[in-house]
Formats: sequence, structure tokens, C-alpha cells
Amino acid sequence: MYSFKNDYSEGAHPRILNALVESNFVQEDGYGEDQFTQKAIELLKEKIGTDVDIHLLSGGTQTNLTALSAFLRPHEAAIAAGTGHILTHETGAIEATGHKVISVEAENGKLKPEYLQAVIEEHTDEHMVKPKLVYISNSTEIGSIYKKSELTALRDFCNEHNLILFMDGARLGSALCSEENDLKLSDLPELVDAFYIGGTKNGALIGEALVICRDSLKEDFRFHLKQKGALLAKGRLLGIQFLELFRDNLFFDLALNANKMAKMLRDELGKANFTFLTHSPSNQIFPILPNKLIAELQGKYSFHIWQKVDPENSAIRLVTSWATKEEHVTAFIEDMKKLVL
Amino acid sequence: MYSFKNDYSEGAHPRILNALVESNFVQEDGYGEDQFTQKAIELLKEKIGTDVDIHLLSGGTQTNLTALSAFLRPHEAAIAAGTGHILTHETGAIEATGHKVISVEAENGKLKPEYLQAVIEEHTDEHMVKPKLVYISNSTEIGSIYKKSELTALRDFCNEHNLILFMDGARLGSALCSEENDLKLSDLPELVDAFYIGGTKNGALIGEALVICRDSLKEDFRFHLKQKGALLAKGRLLGIQFLELFRDNLFFDLALNANKMAKMLRDELGKANFTFLTHSPSNQIFPILPNKLIAELQGKYSFHIWQKVDPENSAIRLVTSWATKEEHVTAFIEDMKKLVL
Amino acid sequence: MYSFKNDYSEGAHPRILNALVESNFVQEDGYGEDQFTQKAIELLKEKIGTDVDIHLLSGGTQTNLTALSAFLRPHEAAIAAGTGHILTHETGAIEATGHKVISVEAENGKLKPEYLQAVIEEHTDEHMVKPKLVYISNSTEIGSIYKKSELTALRDFCNEHNLILFMDGARLGSALCSEENDLKLSDLPELVDAFYIGGTKNGALIGEALVICRDSLKEDFRFHLKQKGALLAKGRLLGIQFLELFRDNLFFDLALNANKMAKMLRDELGKANFTFLTHSPSNQIFPILPNKLIAELQGKYSFHIWQKVDPENSAIRLVTSWATKEEHVTAFIEDMKKLVL
Amino acid sequence: MYSFKNDYSEGAHPRILNALVESNFVQEDGYGEDQFTQKAIELLKEKIGTDVDIHLLSGGTQTNLTALSAFLRPHEAAIAAGTGHILTHETGAIEATGHKVISVEAENGKLKPEYLQAVIEEHTDEHMVKPKLVYISNSTEIGSIYKKSELTALRDFCNEHNLILFMDGARLGSALCSEENDLKLSDLPELVDAFYIGGTKNGALIGEALVICRDSLKEDFRFHLKQKGALLAKGRLLGIQFLELFRDNLFFDLALNANKMAKMLRDELGKANFTFLTHSPSNQIFPILPNKLIAELQGKYSFHIWQKVDPENSAIRLVTSWATKEEHVTAFIEDMKKLVL
Repeated sequence: MYSFKNDYSEGAHPRILNALVESNFVQEDGYGEDQFTQKAIELLKEKIGTDVDIHLLSGGTQTNLTALSAFLRPHEAAIAAGTGHILTHETGAIEATGHKVISVEAENGKLKPEYLQAVIEEHTDEHMVKPKLVYISNSTEIGSIYKKSELTALRDFCNEHNLILFMDGARLGSALCSEENDLKLSDLPELVDAFYIGGTKNGALIGEALVICRDSLKEDFRFHLKQKGALLAKGRLLGIQFLELFRDNLFFDLALNANKMAKMLRDELGKANFTFLTHSPSNQIFPILPNKLIAELQGKYSFHIWQKVDPENSAIRLVTSWATKEEHVTAFIEDMKKLVL
Repeated sequence: MYSFKNDYSEGAHPRILNALVESNFVQEDGYGEDQFTQKAIELLKEKIGTDVDIHLLSGGTQTNLTALSAFLRPHEAAIAAGTGHILTHETGAIEATGHKVISVEAENGKLKPEYLQAVIEEHTDEHMVKPKLVYISNSTEIGSIYKKSELTALRDFCNEHNLILFMDGARLGSALCSEENDLKLSDLPELVDAFYIGGTKNGALIGEALVICRDSLKEDFRFHLKQKGALLAKGRLLGIQFLELFRDNLFFDLALNANKMAKMLRDELGKANFTFLTHSPSNQIFPILPNKLIAELQGKYSFHIWQKVDPENSAIRLVTSWATKEEHVTAFIEDMKKLVL
Repeated sequence: MYSFKNDYSEGAHPRILNALVESNFVQEDGYGEDQFTQKAIELLKEKIGTDVDIHLLSGGTQTNLTALSAFLRPHEAAIAAGTGHILTHETGAIEATGHKVISVEAENGKLKPEYLQAVIEEHTDEHMVKPKLVYISNSTEIGSIYKKSELTALRDFCNEHNLILFMDGARLGSALCSEENDLKLSDLPELVDAFYIGGTKNGALIGEALVICRDSLKEDFRFHLKQKGALLAKGRLLGIQFLELFRDNLFFDLALNANKMAKMLRDELGKANFTFLTHSPSNQIFPILPNKLIAELQGKYSFHIWQKVDPENSAIRLVTSWATKEEHVTAFIEDMKKLVL
Repeated sequence: MYSFKNDYSEGAHPRILNALVESNFVQEDGYGEDQFTQKAIELLKEKIGTDVDIHLLSGGTQTNLTALSAFLRPHEAAIAAGTGHILTHETGAIEATGHKVISVEAENGKLKPEYLQAVIEEHTDEHMVKPKLVYISNSTEIGSIYKKSELTALRDFCNEHNLILFMDGARLGSALCSEENDLKLSDLPELVDAFYIGGTKNGALIGEALVICRDSLKEDFRFHLKQKGALLAKGRLLGIQFLELFRDNLFFDLALNANKMAKMLRDELGKANFTFLTHSPSNQIFPILPNKLIAELQGKYSFHIWQKVDPENSAIRLVTSWATKEEHVTAFIEDMKKLVL
């Protein structure tokens, strides 16, 4: 049984484990004040921009809740697409810090200024929350990605309405390595106020690098990390991993592999005349398959059944990763072809 | 420069890194539903008691805030010794979840029924919070440990007053391996309602195993984990480590080493006629040294200066760990002796 | 300019002011432990049922946030119709206490088991909040009311799924006095787990009587009142008013007047062939009028323009109250008729 | 039985009730947008300073929790004297909004720069909360008052350390009318960042006027009021009362009466050679009396027994108010004298 369920089924890229082993007996200070973390942050700044602040956290929900609760005052709310992770799969983590998340129906999982405009117009006075932060994911939860022009339009809208633009980058690697992508890591500080670079889903054991671009959001951030349980005693664990991922092109190579494997699946499923639930040029694809075929594939592969499409067909989610090998994909395609015949 | 600053200066015990390497390409489900985590939990249950619930988290603050906010209703408060970690070094993490922590002056960092009695008597009605949870640490933040009789007295008091007894075990290994200890891991479910076994400070990269003993506290606990950002996508990282720590006696061997190294320091400092701030039969000791000697030791060793004792002397904190070798301790003692002459 | 903007435009019914004046110099204990509050509660229990707990609070948002935060554990969420007051006009008060409110599209502002069923099915595991409390308003925010059979169906569903059924009764008087109503105050403990009787919008200066029917929700409730700032030093202010409202039929007489005035407006607007946005047999009606007519009416009357219906027509909200007199309604109708000609 | 238990035993000053009656049928907008509230705010600004913002709330706990949660970011804490109301009698209301309150031992219930200095020195980094707001009460919970020089010293310290100075004025009237007072209402905007003028304990039914002096604390405050349930639908109830209290000297006349009555008690108890627990030149006094005398006085008067002083004697609390008449005080003194003989 091979799993296409997600991009966190294996451990870490071997180079990361190796880096942990090699550094193991170096004594370092705790709580992210170690040399590895400091170097990783410097390295990331070189690639992103020198005037950002960077903090390393353990996971996506933790990063989202720590950042949003630090950035917002009590009456301020976030806006997210209905498919947004903070709305669907974080057990009310943002609300638990006191903030409403306003849900917006969004085509292909992506926010647009026109959706935000409607929210702004609806929230007119102090009897309602004040929309303040725009939460987007890139790639999105349904595999789509933002083009530079789309982000620029959101940026302009946010500037005009004094909104914070926050990008969940749990799968940022895959987005930036998509063949449809036209964004660079170094473009982001101009476009968003804060974002994170997901390590967990791109070859690390754990780790997300939160990048705070807007000066007014930087102050005292380490207090928030500590208060939310996000400051690891052995912060080196995060530093060592990001150092390894970014000291050469490893981070992007891993994302490229995931995307390449997804593309193979997408192409072959397309050739077999299957359609897709969403346009997803990243490492998650959502082909619509006959229920019977799905049942048969489940005998050899594990994946999520995403949603019913009609009585006969359902969309499934196939996720590839840094660890997916061509042989896994080829085997799946062969099996699919045999079953289709 | 050798560091006695804390017990999380190095990475992990090599066997743990090895276990991560060996299991690396096994595909597993996420969020603690992997086989490693399931086996680790089963193994721990065998050692502790079969009717407890166990969850693996990343760190101490995270474990404290997740557990306490899950266990308490909004008007209920925790009681802790003034030296308690939740009062002193967690940036108001418990208050951030809505709960007051009542501070109690406590001899040697340990709570006693008489202290709790005073709190209960003071909190008489709905104009004050309702004291509901007793937070203790074992070993404590100042190195002392609880005897079985002391815990039994607290347990009886808590039963009588319908209080939850919670034990922070960030350094439980060192406590249970102290030569003054008379507690077994399997005694704990009878004595406390919940506790955790600290991995981070006893050889793991990260990881605390929360053990919930009282049935009424178990329900829906995974919701709280997820909401607080404590459910790791690669939960296997925690499972693999605890499996390695407990599949034989490794966890205890590591604690025994830390304690042995601390004892060497304690004995030799005692022989040199230095006194100690606290009675600490665990891996943290607090010798009182002349400021001049401290300054000279700082040239070769790093450690925390804990507090001034008088104009000429201060208490320092020396922490040993699974990674401390006899040669480090011997070198320190030699240097100390030379400087004292 | 006469206002149909809401049912809290005037002060209090003169009998209430008189009761305040007459009792003014009697010395009483504070925080709801006065004789007036105690008597009011006893009186209400006689009318509702002897085994409920009753607490008097100042306003609707305060009552909602105090009750819901007391009733729910951190991971539990409320479900409300999209028009529900806690979703639309309380500035995220429930989220500020840590709880998500799940929004449901609901015909005529009323929840049904089938809507709840869909929510339950969607929330399958610990990655999502746990739906736990069903929030309904009677009368609803758009003037509709619940029939006994509808409440019974909700009750059955809630029993089956272990959900708490909570009724916002800010306008309960108007609901219970509607000509379409078939509920009695004494029916409610069987049907809902908690509800409140709105005084502010039915003749009191301030005041809502929260009735807790389910035993497990009663414990320590006064702690929550105090913590949320809801325990008035001069609690007598609330007690005296509810005593006056319920020592005879005053509460219901006032609601009957409001409904009668609304019905006059509804009937005459209907005769003039205007339609209504919602079916609202209570003291709020939402006629759809030509924008030109609305503009002219605004010269003499104030009211809310609720929403555009088409380019030419909008729905307005007309609210009547205990203080609305027949002459106000007649004048409005005359003016409307003149303008329509 | 006459009660000296508190200053909220009666209803309201008759002029206030009369103002409510006279304005009763004027139609007004809700939520503090009525003409009475607007006029009351203008009137208060004339007396305090034109560039402050003023909001009317219902009670002290509500005002404290709304203001502090609006002013503080999640990691910031308040500092209060150990006797401070937010520490002792608000059921953890501040903690429930997420903020720690740091307790300081304070002579006579009053904070001094030296106490604050110690707190600042202790809180050194992100492992601890960040002290940000200094909470004082004037008069204090034990009857003492702040001199202008004392407030100036606190103001200077707060400026130096970027702290917010907040004054709980539940009994500000009594403080400002003390014979030892040298502060004017119009001095306060220079000295504190926010304060409130207590109506409930000085002749109103309910009502506290929160005055925000520092510009950076003003933004969006009405959102916070609404979110915390503090925005009354019939906000006029608060406006009418403050208008009546401040349209001439009524507010101060009522406080002067309370103080005069307290002074009579203090003088006569002093003449009878009783001492006092605290120096309290306001409307609360804490004489130390023999337990036997206390028991006998309880036959005719109600009051709080504050604390045991020694096995034979206890301090009681006697509170006078706008409603206390000379005859009540004289009677108490006569009875006391008889019992002492």
C-alpha cells in the first residue's frame, strides 16, 4: 500500500537527519538563541530581504494562531476563503485566541479584492467586528496558486483599507516551484505583511519560518512565541533544518520533485480523459474519478476521498512530496490504466 | 567553554537520532495516528497503568497551557508555588487562556496541604476565582523532589476539596532517579490526576508525554491539542523518540547519569565547604559561591547566576544532563579547587 | 419625527419607574442578593417551573456571552442562523470568549433539524470544532417565531446529538404574545436548556432574565456573572423591574400592545398591496416599499432601511413597542396612504 | 437594622430618579447615541478637558475588564497593589481576557515608583509577561487616597518606562472630596492615561464614566464596549444620570456628605480611643474594635468584619454614602458609647 494521502507521510530528507546527527553534541543556548537558528535566519534574510524579522515555529496551526493573535486587537477579525485552513481544519484555533474569522466564498480557493470589498461594505460600525487581516494560502488548500498580479491587486486593496495581508505558506515551496508561478521569494516582502515558509510539508521533520515584513508587526514577537508554547527549548532543531534546506537549493529541489510527480499524475489522468475539481498546478491534485475505480485503487493506494461530485463520481486528493519517487507514480498510473480498460 | 546552563544544550541521545534515521522512509499517517506513536503510548501504558490516556506534545509550556485550559472552566484557577514555572517563565501562558494562577509562598518550592488550605479559606465566594487545580513540579524548578508521603498528603487534600492535582514533569526523570526518591512511575496514577514525562530535558529532541489519569479529564483531549497547535503533522517525530526512550531503560539511564554528575558536583562543592540555596537531590544544584570565584569560573564555564545571597556571595545554578560526562565535571571541580586555594 | 427604529427608543413603562421611586430608600444587599431580586426570581419560577435557576443581567450581548462561555468547553462551538444576533451584531463577543459560531443559511431566520444535521455531518473529527450549542432567537431577528412543534423537533435533535439548545429571548414577550404563537412560558424548560426573557425591549430600562433549565449548566453560574462584569452592585435595579413586570400581567400586556401596533401596520400595508420580506407575526415587520415612498416617509418617520430588494424597491424595518400608541400608527398609515395615491 | 455595609445599599439620589421620569417618553437613539449621553459627555469634557474621550459603562468590573483588554496586547500585564480590586474581587475578570495581573505588596494600598521599579527589574525578557499598565484605585479599596505629588511621581515613572497609568475611580468622588485631597478633576488628564468616575457608589443607579486621556488608547473603543456587553441598548439610562450628577455640583455634594458622615464616625471612634487599620480620609473607615463590642453592634447595624487583628480585636469596615444621614451616624455613635461604658 503506497500513500498519496499527504506530504508528511515520511520523516525528513536524509540531509536534514544528517545535519542533526553532525551537530548533535555542539552545546548551544536554548529557545532559538543558538548559532544554527541565528545562521538560518541570516541566510533566509539574504534570500528574502534584509529588513524582515524571522522566527522559526513548529507547525502551521501554531504559526497561524501565534501570528494572528499577535497582530490583531480584540475587536479585529480575519477574512479567509471558505476553504482556508484556519476556517476548516484548525479546531477554531483563531477563535480560541478571541478573533472571528469571516468566511468568503472564493473561486478556486483564492481571495480577490472584490470579495474583500463586499466584506468591508458589510462591516460598517462597532456592532460588528472590524475586518483587519486578510488570510491567504499559497498554494491554497485546493492546490491553486497566486500569480504576482493577483497578489499585487490584494496588496493594493489592503493598503487602501489598512488591512494586514498574511500568507500561509505551509506549501509555499510547491507554489513557488509551480510551472505557472511568476513569484520569487524576494518579491514577498513587498506584497504581503507576513508569510511563512513551510518546512514540515517540504522535507523537514517540523518547522515553519515566519517572516514578518511590516515593521509595526515585529515588536515583542518573541513574547507571543513563548506565551503560545512555540518557543522550543531545543530551538536548534528548527535552526539546523532550515539551515540545511536553504544553504543551497535543497528546499526548492524538494518542491520541484513534488510538483514534477504531481504533474505526471495530472498529465496521465488528463490523457485518460478524467477532469479535475480544481485547477491545481502544485503538489496536490483533485481528479474526479468513477467511484468504482476509486474503490479499486484503494486496494493498493491510500488517499483522501475529497468530495462527491455526482452519484457515480467523486473527487479524490492525490498529494506528492519530496519523497515521492517516479516509480510510485508510474505504478499508480499503470494500475489506473489497467483498471480503466 | 563548557556549559552547565541547562539540560537542553545538546541535541538528542544518539540512539534517538538513530531511530529517526532508521524509520525515516516508512510511510505513516499524520497527527499522532502513526504506528510509532501508538506503540509508544502502549508501551508507556504498560509501565504506568492501562487505564490512563497518553498524548505526546512538543514542550513544557505547550503541555501546561493545553492541559490546564482543557481541564478548567472559565472561573477556575490554578494554585502554584511562587517558583512554579507557569508563574515565572511562561509569559502568562495560562492567563492567556483565561485562568488566574494563584501564587503561594512555598518552602523549597514544594506545595503542602497547609498552603492550599489557606488559599481555600481565602476564596469564599463568586467575587473571587474558584481554586480548582493544584500545579506542582517534580523535580521542582529549584531542584527539590516530592516524597511519596508528601504527594499522598496533597492527594488527600485534593480529594477532600475536589481539586485537580497536576504534576509538571519536565524533569520527572531526574526526580524519579534521585537517590532520595521513593516514587515509581506506576504510583503516579493513584496520586495525581494528570502529569507529564519530560523528554526534551532528558535526551529527546523535543517531546513531553502527557498522562491523563482521571477519567473526567480525558474527553475530547485531541481537540484541545489541535486547537492549541500541539498536534504535529509528523507526530511520528514524538512517537519514535518515546518508543526509543522507553523500549528499554534508556529514559532512566539518562536521568541517572544527569543525577550522578550533579551529585559529584554537589559532593565536591560540599567538601569545599560551600553551602546550597536549596536542598536539591536532582540534576539542578544551586551552590552559593563568592562573587569573585563565580567571575573566574565564568571564564571557562557558562551557567546561570541565580540570585544574590549577600553582597559577597551569590547562588549559581549548575545543571547536568544525559550528555554531561564525568570529564566535564572533573574539570570543573579541578578548576574550582584551584581557584579556591 | 416619530421613530419606528426600534423598541428601545423610550425609557421604561411608568409603573417600573414608579417601583424604583417607591423602593428607593430601602436598604438592601448588593449583587442580586437583595429582597427584590429574590422575590422576582421566586415569582418567575412560579410561572416557569420550580427547578430552574434564574439570574438577572443587563443586556442581550452580555447575557449571550456570559451564558455561552459558561456552557461551552474551549473546543466547542455554537451553531446559529446566519441572521442570528451573535453572528451579526455583537462584535464577535462569542469569539472573544474563545468559541467559534458556525453560520447556517436558514429560511426565515429559523433553524431546523436538517440544517443541524448537515453541520454535524461536516464536523467529523478533532481537526474541526465540536458543534455543541444551538443558538436560536424567538422571536428571530427578522420577526419570525417558533411554533411548539418546531421547537420540539429541535429539542429531539439536540437530545439525540447531545447538544445544548439555547434561546435568545430578547424579544420573547412579543413572540409569546403573537397571534400565531402556541407556546407558553412554562413549556420552555421542557424544550430548551436555557433561555432568557428580555426586559429591555419590553418596557424595562435594562434587564434580561436568564433561565437555566438543565441542571448540569447551573453550577457556579454566579462566578461567570461576576467575571464578565454582569453582577451589578445595585442588582436591585434589575430585581425591582422584573418584579413589577411579572407581579401581574404587565410584561405580557406590553408585548401585546407592541404586537397589536405591528399588526395594524402590517394589515394596512398589506391592504395597500405591499409585500413583506419575511413572515413576521411579531413586533418587527419588514415591508417592501418603493424607494421614492421610503424617502418621503423619512421626512416624518425614522426607521431602518433593511436591504435593497431591486433597483426600485427596498425592505424597511418598522418596530413597535410597549410605548407605541395607536395614534402614531394611524398617523403613519394616513401618511403612507396619501403618499401612495 | 441600619446598614453601613457599603455605599450601594439604596437606590439613587431622588434627583436622578426624577430626571429619568421627566425624560421617559422622549424618543432617542440607542447605544449611547442619544442626546442625553452626548450632552453628559460634553458636560464632563468641560470639567475635565476637551481632548479626552468619554464612554459610559454600567459597573466597575465591566469598566476595568473592557478598558484593560482594549489597552493591552496579549503578552502585556497589569501591575496592581495586592489590595487592588482587580486582584481581589473581580473573579479573575482581567485574566479571563488573557492578561496577568502582577501583585505588589503596597503600604496603605497605594502604589509607589519603588514598587514598580522592582517589578520592571524582575521582568527582563520574553520568558515573562511584559508589565505595561499600572492599575491604581482612588480612593483605594482600604480608604486611602493619592496626593497630587504621589500621582505625579507615578506619572513620571510611567513616562520613563512607557507604562499606561490607569485609575479605578469607583470611589473617585469621595477621594476628590476628602479633606486631605489636593487633586482636581481637571488635573487628571495630565496625570493618568485613563480613569473613571464612579456613579454607582455616589448616588447613581448604575454608571461609570470612563475617561480616556491618551490618544493612542482611544481608537475603536466603542467596538470593545460592544464586544464586552457594555453598550446598553438604552444607553440613555447612563447619560441621563451623569447629566444630572454633573449639571451642577450634585456629584460632589453627594461625595461630601459621604465623607462628612465618615469623618463623624472616625472622630468619635478616635475620641473613644479606638485605632484604625488604615489611614482613610474617605468614605470607608476600618476601626479596630473588641470582638465583644462588634458582636453587640451587629445586633443593630450591619457592616463587614474586615479582618482579625488579634484574638480580642478585629477591624470592621464602615461605609457611608450620599444616603447616610446624620441621624444614622449619631445613633451608631450613641450605641457605641453606651456599649463601651
